[in-house]
Amino acid sequence: MTTTIPSTQRAAQIHTFTHPLTILPSHPVPNPSALAPNECLVKIECAGVCQSDLHARNGDWGQKPTLPRIGGHEGVGRVVAIGEGTVQGEGGDGGGDGVVEVGDRVGLKWLARTCLRCEFCRKGNESSCKRQKVHGYTVDGTFAEYVVAWVDYVTPIPDTLDSAAATAILCAGLTVYKGLKHCNARAGDWIAIPGAGGGLGHLAVQYAVTMGLRVLAIDTGAPKRELALSLGAEKWIDFKESGDNLIKDVIAATDGLGPHSAIIAAGAALPYNQALWYLRSTGTLVAVGLPGGKPLEAPFGLLVGKELKIIGSAIGSRQDAIEAMDHAVRGKVKCHYTTRKLEEIESIFAEMSAGTITGRVILEI
Amino acid sequence: MTTTIPSTQRAAQIHTFTHPLTILPSHPVPNPSALAPNECLVKIECAGVCQSDLHARNGDWGQKPTLPRIGGHEGVGRVVAIGEGTVQGEGGDGGGDGVVEVGDRVGLKWLARTCLRCEFCRKGNESSCKRQKVHGYTVDGTFAEYVVAWVDYVTPIPDTLDSAAATAILCAGLTVYKGLKHCNARAGDWIAIPGAGGGLGHLAVQYAVTMGLRVLAIDTGAPKRELALSLGAEKWIDFKESGDNLIKDVIAATDGLGPHSAIIAAGAALPYNQALWYLRSTGTLVAVGLPGGKPLEAPFGLLVGKELKIIGSAIGSRQDAIEAMDHAVRGKVKCHYTTRKLEEIESIFAEMSAGTITGRVILEI
Amino acid sequence: MTTTIPSTQRAAQIHTFTHPLTILPSHPVPNPSALAPNECLVKIECAGVCQSDLHARNGDWGQKPTLPRIGGHEGVGRVVAIGEGTVQGEGGDGGGDGVVEVGDRVGLKWLARTCLRCEFCRKGNESSCKRQKVHGYTVDGTFAEYVVAWVDYVTPIPDTLDSAAATAILCAGLTVYKGLKHCNARAGDWIAIPGAGGGLGHLAVQYAVTMGLRVLAIDTGAPKRELALSLGAEKWIDFKESGDNLIKDVIAATDGLGPHSAIIAAGAALPYNQALWYLRSTGTLVAVGLPGGKPLEAPFGLLVGKELKIIGSAIGSRQDAIEAMDHAVRGKVKCHYTTRKLEEIESIFAEMSAGTITGRVILEI
Amino acid sequence: MTTTIPSTQRAAQIHTFTHPLTILPSHPVPNPSALAPNECLVKIECAGVCQSDLHARNGDWGQKPTLPRIGGHEGVGRVVAIGEGTVQGEGGDGGGDGVVEVGDRVGLKWLARTCLRCEFCRKGNESSCKRQKVHGYTVDGTFAEYVVAWVDYVTPIPDTLDSAAATAILCAGLTVYKGLKHCNARAGDWIAIPGAGGGLGHLAVQYAVTMGLRVLAIDTGAPKRELALSLGAEKWIDFKESGDNLIKDVIAATDGLGPHSAIIAAGAALPYNQALWYLRSTGTLVAVGLPGGKPLEAPFGLLVGKELKIIGSAIGSRQDAIEAMDHAVRGKVKCHYTTRKLEEIESIFAEMSAGTITGRVILEI
Repeated sequence: MTTTIPSTQRAAQIHTFTHPLTILPSHPVPNPSALAPNECLVKIECAGVCQSDLHARNGDWGQKPTLPRIGGHEGVGRVVAIGEGTVQGEGGDGGGDGVVEVGDRVGLKWLARTCLRCEFCRKGNESSCKRQKVHGYTVDGTFAEYVVAWVDYVTPIPDTLDSAAATAILCAGLTVYKGLKHCNARAGDWIAIPGAGGGLGHLAVQYAVTMGLRVLAIDTGAPKRELALSLGAEKWIDFKESGDNLIKDVIAATDGLGPHSAIIAAGAALPYNQALWYLRSTGTLVAVGLPGGKPLEAPFGLLVGKELKIIGSAIGSRQDAIEAMDHAVRGKVKCHYTTRKLEEIESIFAEMSAGTITGRVILEI
Repeated sequence: MTTTIPSTQRAAQIHTFTHPLTILPSHPVPNPSALAPNECLVKIECAGVCQSDLHARNGDWGQKPTLPRIGGHEGVGRVVAIGEGTVQGEGGDGGGDGVVEVGDRVGLKWLARTCLRCEFCRKGNESSCKRQKVHGYTVDGTFAEYVVAWVDYVTPIPDTLDSAAATAILCAGLTVYKGLKHCNARAGDWIAIPGAGGGLGHLAVQYAVTMGLRVLAIDTGAPKRELALSLGAEKWIDFKESGDNLIKDVIAATDGLGPHSAIIAAGAALPYNQALWYLRSTGTLVAVGLPGGKPLEAPFGLLVGKELKIIGSAIGSRQDAIEAMDHAVRGKVKCHYTTRKLEEIESIFAEMSAGTITGRVILEI
Repeated sequence: MTTTIPSTQRAAQIHTFTHPLTILPSHPVPNPSALAPNECLVKIECAGVCQSDLHARNGDWGQKPTLPRIGGHEGVGRVVAIGEGTVQGEGGDGGGDGVVEVGDRVGLKWLARTCLRCEFCRKGNESSCKRQKVHGYTVDGTFAEYVVAWVDYVTPIPDTLDSAAATAILCAGLTVYKGLKHCNARAGDWIAIPGAGGGLGHLAVQYAVTMGLRVLAIDTGAPKRELALSLGAEKWIDFKESGDNLIKDVIAATDGLGPHSAIIAAGAALPYNQALWYLRSTGTLVAVGLPGGKPLEAPFGLLVGKELKIIGSAIGSRQDAIEAMDHAVRGKVKCHYTTRKLEEIESIFAEMSAGTITGRVILEI
Repeated sequence: MTTTIPSTQRAAQIHTFTHPLTILPSHPVPNPSALAPNECLVKIECAGVCQSDLHARNGDWGQKPTLPRIGGHEGVGRVVAIGEGTVQGEGGDGGGDGVVEVGDRVGLKWLARTCLRCEFCRKGNESSCKRQKVHGYTVDGTFAEYVVAWVDYVTPIPDTLDSAAATAILCAGLTVYKGLKHCNARAGDWIAIPGAGGGLGHLAVQYAVTMGLRVLAIDTGAPKRELALSLGAEKWIDFKESGDNLIKDVIAATDGLGPHSAIIAAGAALPYNQALWYLRSTGTLVAVGLPGGKPLEAPFGLLVGKELKIIGSAIGSRQDAIEAMDHAVRGKVKCHYTTRKLEEIESIFAEMSAGTITGRVILEI
């Protein structure tokens, strides 16, 4: 199959922070015969656009990407070459068992690779591996036709799920799925989801419902209300309508005791602080985002007095990704997305900054 | 036995917030024959003095005590009467099984009683019961010769532990024991204990050692250093000597990755914020205190980026108290204390405010 | 309300083991004014008939009931009197918080009462309390118009669920719910349910589906197949059709690795032993029944080689019962039942022995 | 360093089942330059002799070794060569982080390698990997001067622990450590250890003590009694002296309720069945051995009635091995062993069969 790989490709590259990405019309394709052991070359079909891609472009996080850098960190494509000397155990019975072959359709994620040897990896906490490589940040990403990935780390995509539908699961879906997995909620417990109608939030609603949780969706506006309720949320609170009564309203809606947990799918600090007030005693707040500016402020009287738990969760492991994808494959979770072209990346960023995007944007590549 | 109960007693009462406690020389003893079902009357032998007693006297927490109020919330004494109609199950084979009889030596705690029926109690989270009664706050406390308590809730004290030694376990010991229990550390994991040489801290060191944890003690001064190391701490860091290098020093002392957890036994906000920086990725910060003023500030980059957990823990359940006491009975945990007289309560408060007290002060009553 | 309580009632009593229950037409109603503290009198509306009632009547378990004994251990009725001196905490905001009042509709369970004070109760393992009272076994049960119960222990029944529908949740539902709760399965995991079409099994299917588990139903015959699939089971295996290929068929149906857990809702030893063979490595077998005769036989090569877990689960706590009921209240779990009369109890037992009953039998009283 | 590797070596090989191992005086050393990616060559210093080696030689387990096969599955040595194309992540800061270099001292275990990609490996349940390679069974083992191992899987041995002391931790220590880790006991809980004076048992006592557990040692004879008590066991029961009263005696020794858990370090079925009788309700039985002949028999009345858990545990993961070793490095766990020569292997097997060996036998190679 490697014979059909062209020598050049289109790609969108971060060249200078805060400047528009450069669309390279004939960027060199990585040489398949120069792949290191355990590397593979993936021909991308779809790539998602995420808020983090905008942060990468702007270099406004503490640790900046190394430049120039092809952006993008969620994508689906087919393996077209595998590096010589690759080690994958022996035997193998299909994609589900972690062995990758040329022709497999696979997903690329924020974590391009972790070492699988350090204490964090050995314990399954791959997101905390200090040797991690990140697509679109420390290694080239999915805003290109061909990307180097690692057979250790790509996620198999079963045939029954189409590439565009799978794409957003690999970052947004994985993030909220793992956050929910770690909040230790039990079927029948209440969970509040601020930002329920957004890109992360509408996936969080679906994963929570699949786990048997009772969802109180918090967001604003009729379209988001309809979306959240149609996805299985049991109750809805419009934060604009509730205004200063939000905390009281949330508690009243959840047995008068407040929800057992909350996962914040909104990109601001306020919903975190509100959650500490409305959570049921012994409840859990899950943080999966990085709202800019202020830190999370937890009054000790709430934290200790109500015996709350605050849990930070980042991305997820290979296993988390496979589980998150499995729920999508079985139709339990569907991402709402629109498809665009690679060349539109800057206008997408502009809309993202303006907050006018609904659902996820998937680039067809 | 009820025939020997006098009609009056000495007691120290909060009469006006911020004013000295009133020493009442002949306060009425509660009438044993007027005890409600499940109430009991306890003749106090020892009562501990805690920072919270000073907060109660000053009325400087959000929810103030109802006045006048006899202070004190940790104490050991003997049951001298039990209310008629008391319901305690049937049968019974000694104090360890929760059935209380006249003559039993028992401990009184911050939680005088919880309802044992609500969702929180049914799940064992008694500290979060909304119907809780609190000694020295919402019901009279242990700064008196006779106190009304509840047979549901008093902690049995085995004969092999003397009353003064048992007293501090009922509040300080219980608080740190439950905090450690909830941090999910595994034998062999590192835990940092800021404030290791203080009243809570020196107990936390011992409980942590008993659980097989490797303790990094943080405090200042040679006496506290010697105390912490003699109690089993494996390493010591003097925060005054480390100064701005504290975070770096803690990480270096714990495999270069930082401790797996930290329990803050110091009464200020700074150690909490420092812990978020030095904790190992996926580590746990346990909050058991209520330092005044500022909230805990958790930068999202640390919380999410390092996948930290922050856990608020308050007091503990009946079972937690029995477990905390059991470690003391078996000699694994010993409180360092000095004994004083009830009449000295105000000078003890003054020393407490000035920070000149080492170990716990136990009043002999 | 206590004025309308009659002095006699109908009741079905075990008088002699293995003999038919005696239908007493005018058995004395317990005197409401003689109720002990924390006792209450409940006017029964519905009572379920369970395999255990037949064991009680036959006295064929190790520990026999004390005779004569009114049978029955699951029932729903209204509180008509509460003993003087009853202790229920203070305040209270409706049935959900554990405070019981005259007029409340409540459920009676196998556990009539536990002590709520011993180590097992303090840890929430009420089923293991050594001081437990059992309806229809060590205290009178629900095959009567009026039963003495305990305010500590009755389960509140929300208005939106009718009494007959609630009845089977109190024993069959609770049993399988708690078993599933303890098997630590995660949404998306496979669970095998042998006996899926029976009284316990059809409830287990529904609880498992509500928790997000993927259910492989095992039983025999088209009606049970249709029932299991209509309740949400994803796959079906007829054990008669599979015969000696059962283990192979189960494994093939569940990713080729076997289910992550199995809960045995069939009343024989064979399905337990089969489960050890088909379970996925590291899988969990939950035992909730007491099939007569042979013990569970676990070959060490399977137990250790596959790192299996075998978990025994009995009935459940107050909290488990409230949770199990809550799923029914929300319409997630529905019991299939037929209603009969108290006088038919012996013919029901006969049909039960013959295996001709489908669904649960509820007596209208 | 590879220049000093000889071309031949001594090795003990299983040639025919049930026959003595063949001592090969000049068996070829694997060619270092022919190592596959991720393979390494280890020069063995010490190799432990285990009951499983005798089973391998006799071919008396269900799945037999492939022959001829060099035996042995626990050993310590130095890495003398690493295969070209080996993939180990990047960077690296010493042995503790999983990156292996020539010159490192490392441990070889029963699991020579697992795939690190399948569901079991991804979840950390490496012992259940279907692609596992086993030293002395499916690949050559440690009864030789040079062994091919995998850089993925060898356990780093810190300098402060000598090779002979480290050897037994890699199989016996790991096995009991992981079993104890999975029994979910809490510091202060009782654990019964039948076989406490044997090879597995005396390590189990030490690991349990390190975790804060209270150990009831069960075995027979004064030397084993002294050993168990000197290692920190709190109580001792001689099963020969107790005879038919064993169950009663164990319960009496542990608060009258029985131990919270039991790990069976004895090689017979009887202690497993006894444990089900003496365990505290809700207690846990951990099985780590493969006693021949009969299966574990669990009466349903005990399993369900007492709500017991039975957990099978096999070997352990890379992380388990590192943790087990860490306790030994810190001096918490010491193996009692004698050193012998490779040529004595058959007389060691004979003594093992006769039951006359005390402690572990370590071969110096």
